[in-house]
Amino acid sequence: MKKIHIIGLGLLGGSFALALKKIKPEIKFTGFDADPKNQEDALALGIIDEGKSQPDEDTDVIILATPANTLGGLLTKTLDQIGPNTLVIDFGSTKENLCKTVADHPKRAQYLAGHPIAGTEYSGPKAAKADLLDQKVFIICEMELTDVQLKGLAYEIFEALNMKLRFMDAEEHDRHLAFVSHLSHVSSFMLGKTVLDKMEDEKSIFDMAGSGFASTVRLAKSSPAMWAPIMEENKNNMLKALSLYISNLSKFRDKIIEDDYEGLALEMQKINKIGDILDLGK
Amino acid sequence: MKKIHIIGLGLLGGSFALALKKIKPEIKFTGFDADPKNQEDALALGIIDEGKSQPDEDTDVIILATPANTLGGLLTKTLDQIGPNTLVIDFGSTKENLCKTVADHPKRAQYLAGHPIAGTEYSGPKAAKADLLDQKVFIICEMELTDVQLKGLAYEIFEALNMKLRFMDAEEHDRHLAFVSHLSHVSSFMLGKTVLDKMEDEKSIFDMAGSGFASTVRLAKSSPAMWAPIMEENKNNMLKALSLYISNLSKFRDKIIEDDYEGLALEMQKINKIGDILDLGK
Repeated sequence: MKKIHIIGLGLLGGSFALALKKIKPEIKFTGFDADPKNQEDALALGIIDEGKSQPDEDTDVIILATPANTLGGLLTKTLDQIGPNTLVIDFGSTKENLCKTVADHPKRAQYLAGHPIAGTEYSGPKAAKADLLDQKVFIICEMELTDVQLKGLAYEIFEALNMKLRFMDAEEHDRHLAFVSHLSHVSSFMLGKTVLDKMEDEKSIFDMAGSGFASTVRLAKSSPAMWAPIMEENKNNMLKALSLYISNLSKFRDKIIEDDYEGLALEMQKINKIGDILDLGK
Repeated sequence: MKKIHIIGLGLLGGSFALALKKIKPEIKFTGFDADPKNQEDALALGIIDEGKSQPDEDTDVIILATPANTLGGLLTKTLDQIGPNTLVIDFGSTKENLCKTVADHPKRAQYLAGHPIAGTEYSGPKAAKADLLDQKVFIICEMELTDVQLKGLAYEIFEALNMKLRFMDAEEHDRHLAFVSHLSHVSSFMLGKTVLDKMEDEKSIFDMAGSGFASTVRLAKSSPAMWAPIMEENKNNMLKALSLYISNLSKFRDKIIEDDYEGLALEMQKINKIGDILDLGK
């Protein structure tokens, strides 16, 4: 492996390069970002060694790390252009539409559908960190459709990065992620909105907001440029997740209306177990 | 100040004692917890020097740190019993009902309505930490109704603890806290419930849950014994906060249904500013 090209030099693309450069300093990283400032920053920060709009012909791996709704077109175009030895991996948060888009592409076997479960509420190359992906899960969808040789190359990379590989259907991926990732972003954004709607005086917000509020509302700082497209790409699952969430909140509200605090306490007690489940995952 | 008695030896009562003991080791702490195991643990952990169901007559300050719905009765009973030089302070998360309950009590001036904005998702004396209250906000309601001399004693304590004093109406307190604290607990609990409802296989939850989900769902580990009573005590404000939250979520869902992703992105951008507001508060 000599050359990797990254399209989209933000938090994920940047962190990927920074981490891999530490382990494999011999690899040359080229890259492109639609925002010239990001590309410039990525070069200055040592994320890429050279900025260029097209990957060199002898590029081993092309990483697509742009917003979810741009990946379909970009992936098709990229597959159209590459030679027979190049692998394309995407880092998108949604997989079903994307896999469908290239299902019949003659070079489908040169594509690996990936999703690193990592991120922060910050974005752009300056937010990139060499340890962001360390010990994190890397989900691979439809692995059986990727060429064996090229797949081996991907495993080599993600194992070198200390990532935990998981395999699932694209449909299953999107359905689960709607609940354990995308929904929590919406719940956080709407919590932020609700408090902003209500509070006339900004000072009183942060004065009385404890660490609990800060933790719950943290994701409301996330990038709209990344998250609006995820809502678009995962529309049907998001609608299901949001409807169930709204229904659960409404039932909770009904219990308060009915003064059923014992019922509330019992329900909260059942939910407490999510703590044990998450702690196990550490 | 020679003697402080704490009723309710959990996270808050325990952390208060541990912190104050470091600064004023000459004070003797007595205390009581309805759960004998908690009282035993508090003694073993050095939170109190002696467990007893009634404060000594020469106790300077009595701290009430029990669940919100028990405070009304406990405060009335405590005021009934104390001599003229004792100050009673409560640490409850709701203030309006409580202040109304003792509004006409002949010893109202010996009560200070307080609320330390501090906590974790854990509870009980073992969760207590000497630095929990450090640099945190301590809200005092209806300060004008507390005796000047006794109020001075309270200031002495909370300033020694490095806490930032804030003053407001009891009604205003409950209204604001519903939004910046109580609502985020409900949003977190219901997020946990929604994911648990949906996920058949527990392993897949934590495998795919990133740090964002963990942060948003953290408060779902909170104690139902503490939080159900807060819902009860702050019923009307909680209903308003929850209704606004549900309405905002429903409008967000409508925008997805209408494929208005530009509208979603614009809205999220406006909400992003909550990050700056919270960062300012640090």
